[in-house]
Amino acid sequence: MAAAPPVAIIMGSQSDWATMRHAAETLDALGVAYDARIVSAHRTPDRLYAFAKGAKAAGHRVIVAGAGGAAHLPGMAAALTSLPVFGVPVESKALSGQDSLLSIVQMPAGIPVGTLAIGRAGAVNAALLAAAVLALTDDGLAARLEAWRQAQTESVAERPETETNP
Amino acid sequence: MAAAPPVAIIMGSQSDWATMRHAAETLDALGVAYDARIVSAHRTPDRLYAFAKGAKAAGHRVIVAGAGGAAHLPGMAAALTSLPVFGVPVESKALSGQDSLLSIVQMPAGIPVGTLAIGRAGAVNAALLAAAVLALTDDGLAARLEAWRQAQTESVAERPETETNP
Amino acid sequence: MAAAPPVAIIMGSQSDWATMRHAAETLDALGVAYDARIVSAHRTPDRLYAFAKGAKAAGHRVIVAGAGGAAHLPGMAAALTSLPVFGVPVESKALSGQDSLLSIVQMPAGIPVGTLAIGRAGAVNAALLAAAVLALTDDGLAARLEAWRQAQTESVAERPETETNP
Amino acid sequence: MAAAPPVAIIMGSQSDWATMRHAAETLDALGVAYDARIVSAHRTPDRLYAFAKGAKAAGHRVIVAGAGGAAHLPGMAAALTSLPVFGVPVESKALSGQDSLLSIVQMPAGIPVGTLAIGRAGAVNAALLAAAVLALTDDGLAARLEAWRQAQTESVAERPETETNP
Amino acid sequence: MAAAPPVAIIMGSQSDWATMRHAAETLDALGVAYDARIVSAHRTPDRLYAFAKGAKAAGHRVIVAGAGGAAHLPGMAAALTSLPVFGVPVESKALSGQDSLLSIVQMPAGIPVGTLAIGRAGAVNAALLAAAVLALTDDGLAARLEAWRQAQTESVAERPETETNP
Amino acid sequence: MAAAPPVAIIMGSQSDWATMRHAAETLDALGVAYDARIVSAHRTPDRLYAFAKGAKAAGHRVIVAGAGGAAHLPGMAAALTSLPVFGVPVESKALSGQDSLLSIVQMPAGIPVGTLAIGRAGAVNAALLAAAVLALTDDGLAARLEAWRQAQTESVAERPETETNP
Amino acid sequence: MAAAPPVAIIMGSQSDWATMRHAAETLDALGVAYDARIVSAHRTPDRLYAFAKGAKAAGHRVIVAGAGGAAHLPGMAAALTSLPVFGVPVESKALSGQDSLLSIVQMPAGIPVGTLAIGRAGAVNAALLAAAVLALTDDGLAARLEAWRQAQTESVAERPETETNP
Amino acid sequence: MAAAPPVAIIMGSQSDWATMRHAAETLDALGVAYDARIVSAHRTPDRLYAFAKGAKAAGHRVIVAGAGGAAHLPGMAAALTSLPVFGVPVESKALSGQDSLLSIVQMPAGIPVGTLAIGRAGAVNAALLAAAVLALTDDGLAARLEAWRQAQTESVAERPETETNP
Repeated sequence: MAAAPPVAIIMGSQSDWATMRHAAETLDALGVAYDARIVSAHRTPDRLYAFAKGAKAAGHRVIVAGAGGAAHLPGMAAALTSLPVFGVPVESKALSGQDSLLSIVQMPAGIPVGTLAIGRAGAVNAALLAAAVLALTDDGLAARLEAWRQAQTESVAERPETETNP
Repeated sequence: MAAAPPVAIIMGSQSDWATMRHAAETLDALGVAYDARIVSAHRTPDRLYAFAKGAKAAGHRVIVAGAGGAAHLPGMAAALTSLPVFGVPVESKALSGQDSLLSIVQMPAGIPVGTLAIGRAGAVNAALLAAAVLALTDDGLAARLEAWRQAQTESVAERPETETNP
Repeated sequence: MAAAPPVAIIMGSQSDWATMRHAAETLDALGVAYDARIVSAHRTPDRLYAFAKGAKAAGHRVIVAGAGGAAHLPGMAAALTSLPVFGVPVESKALSGQDSLLSIVQMPAGIPVGTLAIGRAGAVNAALLAAAVLALTDDGLAARLEAWRQAQTESVAERPETETNP
Repeated sequence: MAAAPPVAIIMGSQSDWATMRHAAETLDALGVAYDARIVSAHRTPDRLYAFAKGAKAAGHRVIVAGAGGAAHLPGMAAALTSLPVFGVPVESKALSGQDSLLSIVQMPAGIPVGTLAIGRAGAVNAALLAAAVLALTDDGLAARLEAWRQAQTESVAERPETETNP
Repeated sequence: MAAAPPVAIIMGSQSDWATMRHAAETLDALGVAYDARIVSAHRTPDRLYAFAKGAKAAGHRVIVAGAGGAAHLPGMAAALTSLPVFGVPVESKALSGQDSLLSIVQMPAGIPVGTLAIGRAGAVNAALLAAAVLALTDDGLAARLEAWRQAQTESVAERPETETNP
Repeated sequence: MAAAPPVAIIMGSQSDWATMRHAAETLDALGVAYDARIVSAHRTPDRLYAFAKGAKAAGHRVIVAGAGGAAHLPGMAAALTSLPVFGVPVESKALSGQDSLLSIVQMPAGIPVGTLAIGRAGAVNAALLAAAVLALTDDGLAARLEAWRQAQTESVAERPETETNP
Repeated sequence: MAAAPPVAIIMGSQSDWATMRHAAETLDALGVAYDARIVSAHRTPDRLYAFAKGAKAAGHRVIVAGAGGAAHLPGMAAALTSLPVFGVPVESKALSGQDSLLSIVQMPAGIPVGTLAIGRAGAVNAALLAAAVLALTDDGLAARLEAWRQAQTESVAERPETETNP
Repeated sequence: MAAAPPVAIIMGSQSDWATMRHAAETLDALGVAYDARIVSAHRTPDRLYAFAKGAKAAGHRVIVAGAGGAAHLPGMAAALTSLPVFGVPVESKALSGQDSLLSIVQMPAGIPVGTLAIGRAGAVNAALLAAAVLALTDDGLAARLEAWRQAQTESVAERPETETNP
């Protein structure tokens, strides 16, 4: 059986994909393979249990988990595996992701979740952080990551469209 | 094997007992049997799965769950059983239980947790709410609960210690 | 006189119905009878008093109460009856329901309100929690609730629309 | 029967007196008679209804109401009388009175509560505001209030204890 | 010179009128005369000083002040007059009126501002509270206010549009 | 080489220009020369380092820096120069600039950033504050600034469009 | 008559001195003369008007203003003078200075207050920022400020007391 | 020259060590070598640039960065290196670490910081996350980490000290 790709992207529902696809696209840009699946801590707890307990043996090396509201997915995944877990708070309707953020980041001592920003930026950055971890032992990826960052730096214009007064 | 008592009080750690014992004492005062145990969603996820999946069959009828910070215990218990689950946000150090509250109350549609106030008041009230549920089919308990409330009403003094100016 | 249906859904104004109808629809789906009415704690305090004091005798067994802003309806209903009360914070305009949530959940020791999430999810879950309470002594409802949850679990797709890279 | 004093100070519990006595002391200093009593919206709802419905007929002219947490007392009093009601958010334990403040101030259109600051300052100011209202038709009180404010202004030192560098 | 009307409605800018006109309309409905003017604490501090210092002598009896953001108008008006001042936090763009609310309500002991809810509800209620104050010595207004409240109570429908299941 | 203009406006990205151009336009109105450039603390840290270290020698006298989210630009600029730095929190998507505000204003003792309001008002005010600083030693600018403020005061209408009742 | 010192430190009450003396001590350390006085926007509005209107003519060049709660002093001072005003949010009891911060920083476009951090750090930094402004035209002060910053940098130890594992 | 240890623990000031030593102690327990040093983004920006730019070449593989208030250290370190950076929000005085948390976690897309909980729990978890990353290619460490987690699970007692009623 082929090993699972190094990164697993999991999310609590189909609607989180609008956010989490930015993690996927970033990994695509860096040439990092991943698997994206829906794992709801609340609606599919058995699936969560099976996935997270088996993630390491399946060959995953890093888990990127996005969820919103009382977002338990990243923390529960981290409770069920010793792989590094990076959490993305999805922006919620009423509280704009403040609930998602606190539910993910305020983990008790013993079970870490490396938490990124609310929403799209967090999804992109979870992918970059996963890549940075994998790049520690993958020189090709390390080079691609450096190039990606270099291109990002170069893409920043010196000046905004309108700027100095004469 | 004797059936488990109707109420299960679960909490994420020994330190939560300082809050949750107020639930226990309230149930004691109402003559409702319970079982109190530590079930950490993060540090003992297998215990959580076993407990919550088996709670109904064991004979429990209501679950009272207290936790703090990124408090996943009440919501994950609710994901694993169809028994009513009442959640108590334990006051956390840095954020005073605001993280606990949001992590418990902001559950997605489909998996309910009836959430009480942060801290001691919430623990007392989780017990009272559990008793109100059980009293729907237990006339003796209903009478004791009414008496408890009546005594509470009568205990409210008419005036504070110092009051009218002469 | 026929007994009132087991669940009473009350709300502070017609505008709350946009949220609370999700509780009604969920009860419909589970085959639980209910009565929905507008009871404003502030504009119709006598109606509140009469309703809540008489709810138990009328035959209601669970009260689901939704309100927004300085949301006093759930807590005042709970003060006037010993039936279980579940509160739904309706999303408010300026503060997005944070005021509604705190006004409902932060009840003092002695008078519990089991509080659900802000908005639609909270309304759905209040209905599910009411059903879970009623199911404790109604095997038919218990079976329908389990089926509802099972269907919910099965409705969660394995993967989002777009997922693995080739 | 002698008429009730112009100001009624009500509070949700004995513990609120530590805050509300500052309202009483301020009224004492201004020579305004008042009645202070404990009226718990949640634990003594019948007392609340009786008090608030009868407050005007009893002779009260202004109500000062203090409460903490899910503070429903000021708003429910305002729902039950057309007298002016001024609310004082008592500082709560976990949320420092943010819950008290929002529960009091965010009243829906139709039932006003003039809300003061959280804690002692709010209690003092509720008394001053009550006095300002009564002073509109009481020249003696108006003079005493002006004198009180003048004394307050004069009590502000020009400089803090240590100030200019040489 | 004719006396100024009993109520002065002041606001920090033209844009606040969208909120404060609800105070004006409510006073219109109750037959209470008022004067509405723009007084910016920050952009027209001299106008503020002159207005507030002269408000009592001009014949005003109650001041209703609306402002947003770092809303200093209500508190500064209260510092410059001993008339009752009621403050309306106008909903601000970035912080939804949370800044307006805290800037108005958290006055230090000595200078009270009776604060209403954020936005339209607060404007309506400031007018109602002003009317309640004036009604203390105006039986005609008292009757109109009672009638207004009674009509409000009667306007609350018993049931939302869709309600019981068959 | 000609000296740099007295004010440097820097911002973290092109998208911040929608906010920061209000600083530029205000300086234009006051006849203060400036340079506007994009300097991202995170994506172009070397550019930040070079710019801030050289700002004083280049001839800048005041730096106006706008950024959003985890807004590090103003504080890092202040760490790298002893020129006065004024920070503008740009409104962020999920948290409406609350993150931007706290990231800019809560600087530790030793490295000050004078922080303005979130969004457009803050950008205008950063320009005005820069002008006020420069006006301390530029009588012409001082006069233009006074005139600008005087015009602002005069632009405030006495009354809103609709105001007194007849 | 001798000119007033370049910096005026004003604060709302004697109790604010515990915070604001850190501004004074920092100016002492930098050899910048100042005047410290109590000016309460609310309790001494006449003093505020007189002080702020006359500050420039008196010879002050920068105003540092500290206040807590509904902190109107910095903004009102800024409304009454065109000198640069730097505001220090004093930590309040219930809300820890969040009310102070928003009341100071969220000024409307047109009247700027450069706001520093809540509490002691903000007071130190207001002094440093005032010094940075004055240093623009005072080479001696510029040198002392650079030396102060250099000493600060050098005071940062390389390592915490306990650090590497053997 | 010997390579630097795999983990660098950096913090903004000596006072942060009270929090960050928990990261050090956790690494000690897991047998992971580290270097702990004080690097202040604001007071020693040159040290920050030198450290972060050189961290990878020196041999570090993961950076753990703790800071409080306007906490720029983790984000600026991440801007200057492509190594994985994990951030720990140190609890601040006035805002209890909410400012620290938002300043660290809300990074823009492009520069990730994996953020842990506020305070001690976050420091412990940053160490555990660093260990989890290193364990991906260090079987001995992986075994020690599993043992640590297993011991943690086993340390959770079944019941709190007092539990069932007789």
